[in-house]
Amino acid sequence: MDIKYNVIKLKNNNKEELKDYVSVEEPLEMNIRFKKNGIWKTENLSITMRTPGNDEDLIAGFLFNEKIIDNFNQLEKIEKQGETVGDYNIQNKIEATINNIKNIDIAKLKRNFLTNSSCGVCGKTSLDAVEVIKNEKLNFSFPKIKKEIIMKSPELLISEQSEFSKTGGIHASALIEDSGKVVLTREDVGRHNALDKLIGYAHKNKLIDNHSQFITCSGRLNFELVQKGLMSNIGIMAGVGAPTSLAIDLAKRFGMTLLGFVKKNSFNIYTNKERIIL
Amino acid sequence: MDIKYNVIKLKNNNKEELKDYVSVEEPLEMNIRFKKNGIWKTENLSITMRTPGNDEDLIAGFLFNEKIIDNFNQLEKIEKQGETVGDYNIQNKIEATINNIKNIDIAKLKRNFLTNSSCGVCGKTSLDAVEVIKNEKLNFSFPKIKKEIIMKSPELLISEQSEFSKTGGIHASALIEDSGKVVLTREDVGRHNALDKLIGYAHKNKLIDNHSQFITCSGRLNFELVQKGLMSNIGIMAGVGAPTSLAIDLAKRFGMTLLGFVKKNSFNIYTNKERIIL
Repeated sequence: MDIKYNVIKLKNNNKEELKDYVSVEEPLEMNIRFKKNGIWKTENLSITMRTPGNDEDLIAGFLFNEKIIDNFNQLEKIEKQGETVGDYNIQNKIEATINNIKNIDIAKLKRNFLTNSSCGVCGKTSLDAVEVIKNEKLNFSFPKIKKEIIMKSPELLISEQSEFSKTGGIHASALIEDSGKVVLTREDVGRHNALDKLIGYAHKNKLIDNHSQFITCSGRLNFELVQKGLMSNIGIMAGVGAPTSLAIDLAKRFGMTLLGFVKKNSFNIYTNKERIIL
Repeated sequence: MDIKYNVIKLKNNNKEELKDYVSVEEPLEMNIRFKKNGIWKTENLSITMRTPGNDEDLIAGFLFNEKIIDNFNQLEKIEKQGETVGDYNIQNKIEATINNIKNIDIAKLKRNFLTNSSCGVCGKTSLDAVEVIKNEKLNFSFPKIKKEIIMKSPELLISEQSEFSKTGGIHASALIEDSGKVVLTREDVGRHNALDKLIGYAHKNKLIDNHSQFITCSGRLNFELVQKGLMSNIGIMAGVGAPTSLAIDLAKRFGMTLLGFVKKNSFNIYTNKERIIL
């Protein structure tokens, strides 16, 4: 599932404004319904950020892969739930009714799920949930960054990226000044962890200056990364890969400049272009 | 943090055996300690798969980014815990003691964390935990796949990958026969979701034949993806990107053939080379 967004594509000295496809990212709340001691119970199992479509297969595969069911005959019914939300008219809740469930300890099970980050809640309220914890837009003056510095930033990420050059398999985030000077980089197999490590160290050592810095991340920019940037009032976030729909929506809502597909000679501007010096 | 693994590098008709760097992936259990109604409490907050190193910054950044703390003065102490595990002698638990904690509802907070997949537990038991749910190695006869089919598989992934060609920002998984015929592909902004959708649909429609098929995934192969493959007794998993240390360890433990950096003319074999026809 994809949707078109306005985007400014910069390439060398050319500038083109157009509508381009972006992959949709939306939360899905997965619930299971099962009989325990003769009584029907419903438990919330997981919230995942997914691209809408084939949601029934997603919950079926998840239940099987997590060994909550042993075979697909245990799936009695799978139902989408909740009101339709967003521009896409999709439902962001799904419930699987399971028969012959093992004597399963849901609490223990949930404890063992890996967690990445909070998304708040599902559907139309996922952006609202961020507003609860962040009650204002980014409203102070941000640096304007020259496009050449942005284009240089993936290179800065890699030159400082010792692990990447060795293993080719690690994510990185960098805090960079408007001059192009790298303040700090952090690496991790999880891109969210790389950004948490960067933010953690930068705050502890009072390295963040919102008026002169931006963040570049390897890989794609999703809801989670933009949310983490917002918490520290980062005005500009750039990704080497594509942004998701929810990343763009969130950046727009809070006034962050979001950049994607950043390369040596080109990048895309998705929101708040006024902070980029062309 | 990286470590060297044995790897067979195939390029065109050349074959080279060497030791190469792989990024370390290990679980980290994050706990918080805080006073509530005058009594000290400890709560498990999250388990994340991370590259060891800067773990104190990771938990500090996580707590701030999730708004559990408002400022870093609330962090009274951060302590690594647990026995040292693995070949790396690292600790996989960490606890942050927080003062002046807000009247926070941990249960509600945890409910809102995104979950990806189960990892079981931390450190030396993370592989054991998979053994609990999967009590035997992959022990039946698997197909042998020609190296040319493996090299062709990323192309098959993309040719079927309608979303990727439009947005450039989505992950995909494909179930492929030994002949090179694509059985099924699924896409999602989350690579774990793409694989859950693939597995869910494939099982429902009885498309999986362990004796003639393998799975190729876009991006990197981590613990989570290999675990999901194991649950369906997939004998060969290939990734367009790098594998993590724990992905290799898990594949080795259960007898899966793990391939990485799969390109048009080359790929790496990390485990169980006997299933690849050179």
